[in-house]
Amino acid sequence: MSRPRPSPPARLLYEPLLRAGLAEDLGTAGDLTTDAIVGVHATAHAAIVARADGIAAGVAIAGETFALLDPDVVATSCVADGDGVMRGTVLATVAGPARAILTGERVTLNLLGRMCGVATATARFVAAVGDHPARIVPTRKTTPGLRALERYAVRAGGGTDHRFGLADGVLIKDNHIAAAGGITEAVDRARRRVGHMVAIEVEVDTLDQLAEAVGLPITAVLLDNMTPDELAEAVARTPDGIVTEASGGITLETVPQVAATGVDLISVGWLTHSAPALDVGLDVVAPA
Amino acid sequence: MSRPRPSPPARLLYEPLLRAGLAEDLGTAGDLTTDAIVGVHATAHAAIVARADGIAAGVAIAGETFALLDPDVVATSCVADGDGVMRGTVLATVAGPARAILTGERVTLNLLGRMCGVATATARFVAAVGDHPARIVPTRKTTPGLRALERYAVRAGGGTDHRFGLADGVLIKDNHIAAAGGITEAVDRARRRVGHMVAIEVEVDTLDQLAEAVGLPITAVLLDNMTPDELAEAVARTPDGIVTEASGGITLETVPQVAATGVDLISVGWLTHSAPALDVGLDVVAPA
Amino acid sequence: MSRPRPSPPARLLYEPLLRAGLAEDLGTAGDLTTDAIVGVHATAHAAIVARADGIAAGVAIAGETFALLDPDVVATSCVADGDGVMRGTVLATVAGPARAILTGERVTLNLLGRMCGVATATARFVAAVGDHPARIVPTRKTTPGLRALERYAVRAGGGTDHRFGLADGVLIKDNHIAAAGGITEAVDRARRRVGHMVAIEVEVDTLDQLAEAVGLPITAVLLDNMTPDELAEAVARTPDGIVTEASGGITLETVPQVAATGVDLISVGWLTHSAPALDVGLDVVAPA
Amino acid sequence: MSRPRPSPPARLLYEPLLRAGLAEDLGTAGDLTTDAIVGVHATAHAAIVARADGIAAGVAIAGETFALLDPDVVATSCVADGDGVMRGTVLATVAGPARAILTGERVTLNLLGRMCGVATATARFVAAVGDHPARIVPTRKTTPGLRALERYAVRAGGGTDHRFGLADGVLIKDNHIAAAGGITEAVDRARRRVGHMVAIEVEVDTLDQLAEAVGLPITAVLLDNMTPDELAEAVARTPDGIVTEASGGITLETVPQVAATGVDLISVGWLTHSAPALDVGLDVVAPA
Amino acid sequence: MSRPRPSPPARLLYEPLLRAGLAEDLGTAGDLTTDAIVGVHATAHAAIVARADGIAAGVAIAGETFALLDPDVVATSCVADGDGVMRGTVLATVAGPARAILTGERVTLNLLGRMCGVATATARFVAAVGDHPARIVPTRKTTPGLRALERYAVRAGGGTDHRFGLADGVLIKDNHIAAAGGITEAVDRARRRVGHMVAIEVEVDTLDQLAEAVGLPITAVLLDNMTPDELAEAVARTPDGIVTEASGGITLETVPQVAATGVDLISVGWLTHSAPALDVGLDVVAPA
Amino acid sequence: MSRPRPSPPARLLYEPLLRAGLAEDLGTAGDLTTDAIVGVHATAHAAIVARADGIAAGVAIAGETFALLDPDVVATSCVADGDGVMRGTVLATVAGPARAILTGERVTLNLLGRMCGVATATARFVAAVGDHPARIVPTRKTTPGLRALERYAVRAGGGTDHRFGLADGVLIKDNHIAAAGGITEAVDRARRRVGHMVAIEVEVDTLDQLAEAVGLPITAVLLDNMTPDELAEAVARTPDGIVTEASGGITLETVPQVAATGVDLISVGWLTHSAPALDVGLDVVAPA
Repeated sequence: MSRPRPSPPARLLYEPLLRAGLAEDLGTAGDLTTDAIVGVHATAHAAIVARADGIAAGVAIAGETFALLDPDVVATSCVADGDGVMRGTVLATVAGPARAILTGERVTLNLLGRMCGVATATARFVAAVGDHPARIVPTRKTTPGLRALERYAVRAGGGTDHRFGLADGVLIKDNHIAAAGGITEAVDRARRRVGHMVAIEVEVDTLDQLAEAVGLPITAVLLDNMTPDELAEAVARTPDGIVTEASGGITLETVPQVAATGVDLISVGWLTHSAPALDVGLDVVAPA
Repeated sequence: MSRPRPSPPARLLYEPLLRAGLAEDLGTAGDLTTDAIVGVHATAHAAIVARADGIAAGVAIAGETFALLDPDVVATSCVADGDGVMRGTVLATVAGPARAILTGERVTLNLLGRMCGVATATARFVAAVGDHPARIVPTRKTTPGLRALERYAVRAGGGTDHRFGLADGVLIKDNHIAAAGGITEAVDRARRRVGHMVAIEVEVDTLDQLAEAVGLPITAVLLDNMTPDELAEAVARTPDGIVTEASGGITLETVPQVAATGVDLISVGWLTHSAPALDVGLDVVAPA
Repeated sequence: MSRPRPSPPARLLYEPLLRAGLAEDLGTAGDLTTDAIVGVHATAHAAIVARADGIAAGVAIAGETFALLDPDVVATSCVADGDGVMRGTVLATVAGPARAILTGERVTLNLLGRMCGVATATARFVAAVGDHPARIVPTRKTTPGLRALERYAVRAGGGTDHRFGLADGVLIKDNHIAAAGGITEAVDRARRRVGHMVAIEVEVDTLDQLAEAVGLPITAVLLDNMTPDELAEAVARTPDGIVTEASGGITLETVPQVAATGVDLISVGWLTHSAPALDVGLDVVAPA
Repeated sequence: MSRPRPSPPARLLYEPLLRAGLAEDLGTAGDLTTDAIVGVHATAHAAIVARADGIAAGVAIAGETFALLDPDVVATSCVADGDGVMRGTVLATVAGPARAILTGERVTLNLLGRMCGVATATARFVAAVGDHPARIVPTRKTTPGLRALERYAVRAGGGTDHRFGLADGVLIKDNHIAAAGGITEAVDRARRRVGHMVAIEVEVDTLDQLAEAVGLPITAVLLDNMTPDELAEAVARTPDGIVTEASGGITLETVPQVAATGVDLISVGWLTHSAPALDVGLDVVAPA
Repeated sequence: MSRPRPSPPARLLYEPLLRAGLAEDLGTAGDLTTDAIVGVHATAHAAIVARADGIAAGVAIAGETFALLDPDVVATSCVADGDGVMRGTVLATVAGPARAILTGERVTLNLLGRMCGVATATARFVAAVGDHPARIVPTRKTTPGLRALERYAVRAGGGTDHRFGLADGVLIKDNHIAAAGGITEAVDRARRRVGHMVAIEVEVDTLDQLAEAVGLPITAVLLDNMTPDELAEAVARTPDGIVTEASGGITLETVPQVAATGVDLISVGWLTHSAPALDVGLDVVAPA
Repeated sequence: MSRPRPSPPARLLYEPLLRAGLAEDLGTAGDLTTDAIVGVHATAHAAIVARADGIAAGVAIAGETFALLDPDVVATSCVADGDGVMRGTVLATVAGPARAILTGERVTLNLLGRMCGVATATARFVAAVGDHPARIVPTRKTTPGLRALERYAVRAGGGTDHRFGLADGVLIKDNHIAAAGGITEAVDRARRRVGHMVAIEVEVDTLDQLAEAVGLPITAVLLDNMTPDELAEAVARTPDGIVTEASGGITLETVPQVAATGVDLISVGWLTHSAPALDVGLDVVAPA
């Protein structure tokens, strides 16, 4: 598949999350079970395996968890993020001190399962769009603390980025419009304040609002909670050069219809707030 | 309902998560849209509203997010965690500086939607158990960094606790048994090392393993991936005084059958790794 | 003056910097001098005063330092950020426990002097532009850890924002062009990867490069190290709808010439990496 | 030159600053431009080069930034801190993964330019003192969070240390004297409270104050805002064994006169609050 | 001795403490003495030596301090935690850059001396119990921030664990009983709320209270401040299957009598709140 | 008693320690016992009481722990740090939500008991010095992370300060002398490098070393492990103006003899590394 590999976040951005995950599992007394039962010199080889079909995401990232417990553990990715995997596919191998492998297993799988789940869900939406030009984009409806990783998983699943957060794009919603007294005034206030690198998108609920918005110097319109017919009409009325984004409760069942309206982007909050984890497991294949 | 209210975690344990959620959304440049459009002295009243039926969890906790942006925002809970809510129920009201309310909206809803989602899923499993004595318990398959809040949401949904992490209970799994060379040796090693306050549970896959385990000084057996018939047999063979726990891919459809086997506990990883968020929104009801 | 007030960063973003500043000054033994000499119950009134003409920035922010030492200190801003001030203007008053006022004085002034210095330098560049339409913008050449505050100070001085950092805009420089093998390929790679909210700017050194760049779907061109004549020619050759930015060693002496070329933006790294601090002091006006 | 090399701060003290600098530049989405354009396997060789004459400071420290992004980047210092450099001097070479080099460039240069700027300014003051015995010392007027690095840069430029902060020396200023009711009482309170390792310096504005101070058990007098004639008189009236320090708006133009008065120390806040950055750049000399 | 080696806490749990210890000793200016006197290229070999008889604990952990200053220092343990040592026993050797060895010496010894002190005290209590079956257990009376290391030291000295903190066991004390209105109600409330892995222990002061407690589903009774005769009677009245713990001001002198009563556990807060440090020193044996 | 009250460290310096203490006790699941048994609306009044005679230290500091759990708890000091207390003296009262009082009890007492223990031990040494002029000073042999609080407790007990850490004074020990090749060279190196505010002390083991040291520009000599006779001789040979400090295994039994030699300072590591905690408890005096 020719889709470019997404770039993972810098390690210094997600390492604190791995440490936090381990810290809450270890408590301060550590892994009572493994410490009591497994010898300090025991080693093991293990495989991290998909237990369902899906898309890989976070394989190398989640694998770094083990080395935070013991730098002698070596985790080796067997698939790249963005690859399709099947039930039984080995995602990574892990070798080294057995204690660190058993102790780090759950945190690693928790993170990996979630990231693969997001990527898998995204890929399903992308597939459902089919030959329509619409791209699937995520929202800010992410898990607190995990936005960078969940957004990366969306890209691994074939999605495209939206603004990352409040600081890298203007998205004018109904409350902002109400506060400004109208779309034109809201866009004008925003335009006067932000720099030339900041794009402005306006949420519209009606075709009347759309008519006002598309006459303003904006980059995109968010067409919120419209029916497919309304969407098609809105797309038709939006001039070239302004991006159209459909939003609002779009599901795997409804996304083909939405894509058929010709919108440029379909944003799906469900990808990050509700996609089920992909089932992944760790099999010890050879104790030493 | 006579179920006791669960106790929320201490504020000092989850406040860093609220800050992290805000920090990743604000970036370093802050909320460009709100800062440009909404006046610094504007105030607002808003309602946090359920957009679907479910169980409340995290209402007060998520509401604290606003005050981290501006101590003049007052969030007031309208329901208690554990309460059932319907589409349209107001969960909390928020009043104060409009900027902080609009800026903090998304992080608040992201956390609240997830917590209510976990509680709602739990309550459905609890309801599906019906009059059987089995209690629903969570696992360690939680989101990195959110375990305390997700576990609290399970309790709000009517679930009971399992061990929190690696440090507060011994759970001997197949890899531990393999490392020790047998169940008896594994339990013996654990018993010798841990204190009198630490309970030991052993995972068994077969009735033969069960027979060995129940003769040992343990608190519980985890009956992993058994059929209802196997479970019923296992329950029958387990002496009084040892808790039985069923585990392994149990769903809302299969849980009644599992409960009917007479097991004491049914653990469901899905509650925390894959339950969909409850749809919650913030409506500005009165700008000032 | 009709220039809108800039919005300060959220408190949770800069409070750690105030704490770090205090921590490095207090060491672990604290303020030996004040603790030895000033009684624990002594109170004082003090004025933070400009000792030179300039533009205020950070008055309220720097004033929060005292309350981190003692919540009973009240700091009250007397001017708004963005206001012009003269030698002798009282920027803020501070009242409360004398120990906290004396101990916090230096950190407060260090931050305030730097922020006012950046704002003052910016305002001088803005004034030098005169009636030309060019706006003064900052760069990423900021002090590690202080970007949000230094950028805010630029806005207080009348500057406009540029991208905040690497994550909120694409700026394709010579090394990127070399890596891609050409401007067109570089823009194409960027366009395919980033979302619709991300603007692309391309740095060009020659009119030939400019010709290639302006035919591509970009938002802005950075005209690097060009003479005024080259700049004027470049501006003339850039189609409407693409922003022009002049950059490269522009000083207060050369900025009028640069502005006269008709460029839209003039970026000045000096504002944040080398502007001298404004001299500000704290006068104890009434010990209690 | 026989001046001893200053000792850099321990790595554990400044590494958090490097991380903070990277974090604010990377945001959570990372370097969009480089990630989109430069291949993950591309490597590069680069040189960090002075673009103006000055004194090196922070070369090795700033070079550590790259390895925080990718441990495979190797930065090699070509000059030692304290060395004089000229426009064109290569300060360090950097080799390894191209992405990390391009992404880390700005933070590295921001820190290095500031530190070299402080060292260069210090060296100019030291040179202006000429054959007089006076030493140049810094103040506490440093950038919040950067004191250790700015103070180290002063030492690299040939300056000598003053007390680091509030905890490692007593400096009695006018407000302390007022609070105590007089110099003698202030010194007495300080002497009774602090340990034998803590030196006491007293700020005096007049020769009368000086007369009182030098009769007390103190280490130094700070002669604040005196004219050269007053300074010379003050130095003459200060007994051997008490260090004299001149302070207050001393510039490169006035420092020779001040030094000629025979003072032991000349403290210059400008070195750390207002010295311009040295212009330094990164040239990619060989992409792989 | 056949006692199993205790498992040390995970490195990620105690490394922040080592960093904090170094940071408070280094201040921000670092080790003035060593930096001034010892050359940057000097190396040394040193031995960490016991200066009194005792039990080793924390040898490897404390030895990691040096590498936080300079990764080129190699610390090698010569004894295992739990080993008996004598005055003169070399606990570890340290080799590498002399500056880091001299700078890190004090923090290393401070931690090691405390941990060995706790282990040594524990071993003395264990020895005093003699052939009685009672085990020595610690309490929550530990130094803030050091619980994991002090508890590990107790295990190194031959003690057994108690609950680690408030979250991993229920211990119902007098104030809880008063709040509930009685022992039965308190146990009932606890039992209904906590999971099956959580053990319940009840503190009783009298035989009447004991009679009530032992009829409830609890794991242990804490017999607080009883005389040996009362203890013996209490032990006699406690059914098999409930653990008995003696507590309250038990000293090395009184512990044999207490052990003779037949109690299962003897908890001693003194082990962690008041045990004197073991005298340990660092001898430089070969400067390079 | 006319001894001045010591100044406590700034709150921002010790609050992280209080949080760390609570965090390790609460784990992530919190106080299971109190949460299960005590109602969320229950309130209580409690007294923190000395259970042995001693000197108060840290009363207000330790009392702040409760408010970190619940800002509605009010802790009120009844004695000042430095006051003598007897068995039964109420040190502070605590009122507010019962849960926070019971949950925070142990961490508060752990810190308070340690600080009072250090102060009490110090006061005993001070008393043992009697009318001799020698002052008792602490060393750097403190608990990692607690130096500021332990040092403050020494001052509360009537001790005087020594250098706080490596950064605020030069103390030349045997290894430094060996590295430099002699005392004179070591002092010379130190003097050339450090600023005028830094005092130099030299450790000497023999009278020959003392003879060399006292001819150099130093502030103090540390007379290590000398007998009383040697100390007396050393004191006699030390010129006025150089402070003498006795050090090395000095106990409550030997300190009068040491003080009788006329030394200025007696440093006692035992105060902070081995002083037993003062027994303090919390009595709930009135549940609401």
